[in-house]
Amino acid sequence: MALLTTVSDMERITPQIEALVKKGLPVVSTCEELSYPWVQAPALSKRLDEAARAAGVAVLGTGVNPGFLMDALPTFLTAVCRRVERIFVKRYQDAQFRRLPFQQKIGAGLSPEQFEAKKQSGTLRHVGLTESIQMIAARMGWQLSKTEDLLSPVIAWKEVRTPDLTIPAGNALGVRQVGKGWVGEELKIELDFQAAVALEHSFDEVRIEGDPAFSSRIEGGIHGDTATCAIVLNAIPQVLRATPGLKTMLDIAPVSFFG
Amino acid sequence: MALLTTVSDMERITPQIEALVKKGLPVVSTCEELSYPWVQAPALSKRLDEAARAAGVAVLGTGVNPGFLMDALPTFLTAVCRRVERIFVKRYQDAQFRRLPFQQKIGAGLSPEQFEAKKQSGTLRHVGLTESIQMIAARMGWQLSKTEDLLSPVIAWKEVRTPDLTIPAGNALGVRQVGKGWVGEELKIELDFQAAVALEHSFDEVRIEGDPAFSSRIEGGIHGDTATCAIVLNAIPQVLRATPGLKTMLDIAPVSFFG
Repeated sequence: MALLTTVSDMERITPQIEALVKKGLPVVSTCEELSYPWVQAPALSKRLDEAARAAGVAVLGTGVNPGFLMDALPTFLTAVCRRVERIFVKRYQDAQFRRLPFQQKIGAGLSPEQFEAKKQSGTLRHVGLTESIQMIAARMGWQLSKTEDLLSPVIAWKEVRTPDLTIPAGNALGVRQVGKGWVGEELKIELDFQAAVALEHSFDEVRIEGDPAFSSRIEGGIHGDTATCAIVLNAIPQVLRATPGLKTMLDIAPVSFFG
Repeated sequence: MALLTTVSDMERITPQIEALVKKGLPVVSTCEELSYPWVQAPALSKRLDEAARAAGVAVLGTGVNPGFLMDALPTFLTAVCRRVERIFVKRYQDAQFRRLPFQQKIGAGLSPEQFEAKKQSGTLRHVGLTESIQMIAARMGWQLSKTEDLLSPVIAWKEVRTPDLTIPAGNALGVRQVGKGWVGEELKIELDFQAAVALEHSFDEVRIEGDPAFSSRIEGGIHGDTATCAIVLNAIPQVLRATPGLKTMLDIAPVSFFG
């Protein structure tokens, strides 16, 4: 078994995984684009699937997000639904008490111009939102006509002080990234990811519109750091048990803690 | 594919399923004891597993409870945990606006003596609480030393009027059933199921104690009637895709709505 935590994109992860499966190793990776690569990178997905099958091992991309909170968990919650119209997921993280490098990573304190420059450089982007949308859509049987992945600053409307930063009104508190999946003119999936200081609270919420309609909410949210390590390790037994090939969190038996 | 919604116990469901799998039919059943029969009925489980393997089909017991809200879903939520100490699940259903036969089924309006008599006759019992405990424990790797399944009335402390009933103080508003799983002296699993009029609200809640610790809550709860039909149908694609044998919701790929 190989745990691969190197890069975020399919282009660079594919040869790395091919080298591992050729040695007969099953692979669990935190590569974000690998969490549901079938629509965004069909040729590389097929290549990986064939390599894994040839080697008789399973390959999985997972993580907390993408991989669980904004895709696999919402999908699993629809098990009780006889009709699903729309799925909305919110992941709001108050970064106020997280370490300064994390606050800087999400753009906290930047002026609108600085934020825009950092956005253009690509370093603010949470990778995997489109993959989460595609995972949900595939399982719901929705043929998406369009996806969007929109990144914008969360703006301070008054001065905000944290233990580390003083952020003037008008500057960024952090980042908001919204992923949308459309069927024709209809919005079917919306994933709203926010990480900012002074959000006042953190939560993870899934809202299913359908029959029954309901919301499931984790007050306080799931802290990403510990949880990412956990889910990768927790996936191992199910990956070892899976049939060979390129898998997603929806193809293998439900991942859980194991003692 | 056969959908089997006849009886609740392993003793009577086993020959029914054997007859179906001998015809080459995969089976999805709402039989409560079938949701996780391995500990409570090991010999019958083995018999069914062998019959299913011999026939090359998969057999699954599922439902909303047992089968999802108080076992499979809590287990899936632990995917993000690197340590799980205890799992507590609450399913509270306010029966105030449900139909009169349902209110009577849960014992609403009965005197303590009438409630006790009905309890002794076995008609008040929610079947499957112990199976839910065993499913969770098996996946967490907990060797249970003891399980409990305790049924008691929810007592009105003042007179309660519903559109259908007037319940004097001291009589039953409904039923509470608590399932507990112990490792040595330590309570590891508690499933608290309540259905009563005037509970004031309904919800489904999972609380995980561990790292990270968190609660996940569905405000308003999941209505059992629609959801049971839905989950049985939604399980079909995963049962058809599963390897042959007796399966639980934790052995097959995650069940979800499919369009």
